[in-house]
Amino acid sequence: MTVWYEVAAPEADPDIRQQAIQRQNNLTKPKGALGRLEDVAIQMSSLQKTLSPKADTALIAVFAGDHGVTTEDISAYPQTVTAEMVRNFANGGAAISVLARSLDIPFKVVNVGTVYALEDLPNVEDHRVGAGTQNMCVTEAMTLEQCEEAFAVGRDVIDQAGDIDVFIGGEMGIGNSTAAAALAVAHTRLSATAMVGRGTGISDQVLAKKAAVVTRAMSRHLPHMKNGVEVLRRIGGYEINALAGAYIRAAQKGIAVLVDGYICTAAAISAVKINPSIRPWLFFSHCSAEPGHKRLLAKMEAAPLLELDMRLGEGSGAALAFPILQAACRLQKEMASFDEAGVSRGND
Amino acid sequence: MTVWYEVAAPEADPDIRQQAIQRQNNLTKPKGALGRLEDVAIQMSSLQKTLSPKADTALIAVFAGDHGVTTEDISAYPQTVTAEMVRNFANGGAAISVLARSLDIPFKVVNVGTVYALEDLPNVEDHRVGAGTQNMCVTEAMTLEQCEEAFAVGRDVIDQAGDIDVFIGGEMGIGNSTAAAALAVAHTRLSATAMVGRGTGISDQVLAKKAAVVTRAMSRHLPHMKNGVEVLRRIGGYEINALAGAYIRAAQKGIAVLVDGYICTAAAISAVKINPSIRPWLFFSHCSAEPGHKRLLAKMEAAPLLELDMRLGEGSGAALAFPILQAACRLQKEMASFDEAGVSRGND
Repeated sequence: MTVWYEVAAPEADPDIRQQAIQRQNNLTKPKGALGRLEDVAIQMSSLQKTLSPKADTALIAVFAGDHGVTTEDISAYPQTVTAEMVRNFANGGAAISVLARSLDIPFKVVNVGTVYALEDLPNVEDHRVGAGTQNMCVTEAMTLEQCEEAFAVGRDVIDQAGDIDVFIGGEMGIGNSTAAAALAVAHTRLSATAMVGRGTGISDQVLAKKAAVVTRAMSRHLPHMKNGVEVLRRIGGYEINALAGAYIRAAQKGIAVLVDGYICTAAAISAVKINPSIRPWLFFSHCSAEPGHKRLLAKMEAAPLLELDMRLGEGSGAALAFPILQAACRLQKEMASFDEAGVSRGND
Repeated sequence: MTVWYEVAAPEADPDIRQQAIQRQNNLTKPKGALGRLEDVAIQMSSLQKTLSPKADTALIAVFAGDHGVTTEDISAYPQTVTAEMVRNFANGGAAISVLARSLDIPFKVVNVGTVYALEDLPNVEDHRVGAGTQNMCVTEAMTLEQCEEAFAVGRDVIDQAGDIDVFIGGEMGIGNSTAAAALAVAHTRLSATAMVGRGTGISDQVLAKKAAVVTRAMSRHLPHMKNGVEVLRRIGGYEINALAGAYIRAAQKGIAVLVDGYICTAAAISAVKINPSIRPWLFFSHCSAEPGHKRLLAKMEAAPLLELDMRLGEGSGAALAFPILQAACRLQKEMASFDEAGVSRGND
């Protein structure tokens, strides 16, 4: 029996792709002059199966969860911050709250597993799968039931999102850049040293410890990673796994995804491992300051739209890329062709 | 007597800069995690002399003009296209028209000197200084009177813009990437080969000719470039000079500038040569696919916000950077501090 997260996403249409390329070449601009915007619009066309693609409606959902690996003392911030930041999201004071308002994109927070239970908060849904994951250095991060429950939390966010063109996922979880680094090592087989970064801002000493922690976790789990689900169960996180579930469901429903930074990209590559058919639906919004992110993007042959030296997470980079995705679609839809505008053609 | 374009722009405030840095470090995010957005917001603070900077209102003005150097056959498009594209701007079918609509930014076109006179068109102002410039290979592009008249066209656009936070200039002019390359050579003393590019899309053969044309123009004019005005008079263009005038006036009036691509950057470096006090007011929106652009940005020690392989002009890259500038300001203004949000501090 096929489980929901293995159901194939709709394929991009190669004929519409060719027609979209043709349309781009007839618009009143030198051929290729809109650069990456043309690639994005052509891809959106082939996915949405129309020469007038759109990226007008979106949802930002930030998934929060805690990580048992923080007991290894690898973060600059105490674990209480995950829940404190959920309150900050709800109160509108976090970066992603400001960006969602500024860009006029609906925004919600989903608690998939903070250590500390939270009171009722506006725009925060409580779907705690557990009180933080287990420490991946000493055991699996979660059970298979918890892993699948976290996937389903992400799926349900998409199912309840209504008719949207674009999904923007974010994450909050002290310790989750360590989980992301472990996932990056699992999917690339590069060294832990290549994949750990300073996260929220750790010292050289803690950075070395973080690499050692990832190495320990990998030596424990790597022999048992028989499939993509098992990777996320052993070294993922509740919020990371919910993101993976959301990405898979978005693609299945024909919703384009703007992938945010390192942690979201680790969720994305894990989701693609589970269900490769979703890959064409993923747009990579930015390359962060985390050195492992560039390596992970390279592994995915992903060309991010922005590179602004950001390393915040929360979906902030993906939110900033949304107006570019939107503009790319509108340009293809609304620009005049040479014939329509009575503009002479060049010999380019 | 000081002429208007030599009047100093207001200086950035170093005390407010320090306070803005402090504020950024107190916001609920790891120190530096918003990357380039923090730099931009801090700079906007020091320019606007407030910890709550804003980039909410803007004007996009596209200046159009023709170039005598097109008689050297260095463009992929016929000269008629400049005027034809002005009609396309007016009719809403050009890329910048679509972007202005998509981003909800007021938009106008200013004809500073097309070869062909144009009928009355909506949102197009006719301020033709001449019917195209002269061929810089054989004489000066324009007279001193025309040069100053073109500056004043740009100045007047700013003076009539009302109360705006940000000015976005664009340009349209077949042949103007050759003028930009000449200006880039004049200001960097790098070779013509380093500074010419494919513009709207020319062949290897035409590219070599374009470099030879720039070299010829420079050997004629370089000995006589005694100041920044003379550079723009000899090898500039009506639309380029209007941009320079607009940039200078914007800075004088405390309006931040988003500089677009290669041609706008050539106008910007020329404007800075004339009036160095404007430099802090210039934000560089993107690095285009024209190889000379990266070199010119390096000369200006400018770090562009976007790199999307675009090479269209019209102000299109600057328009795309506007939401990022706006978001940077709103984040600094609206994010909660650690104390305000009750979020624990890290040791970063």
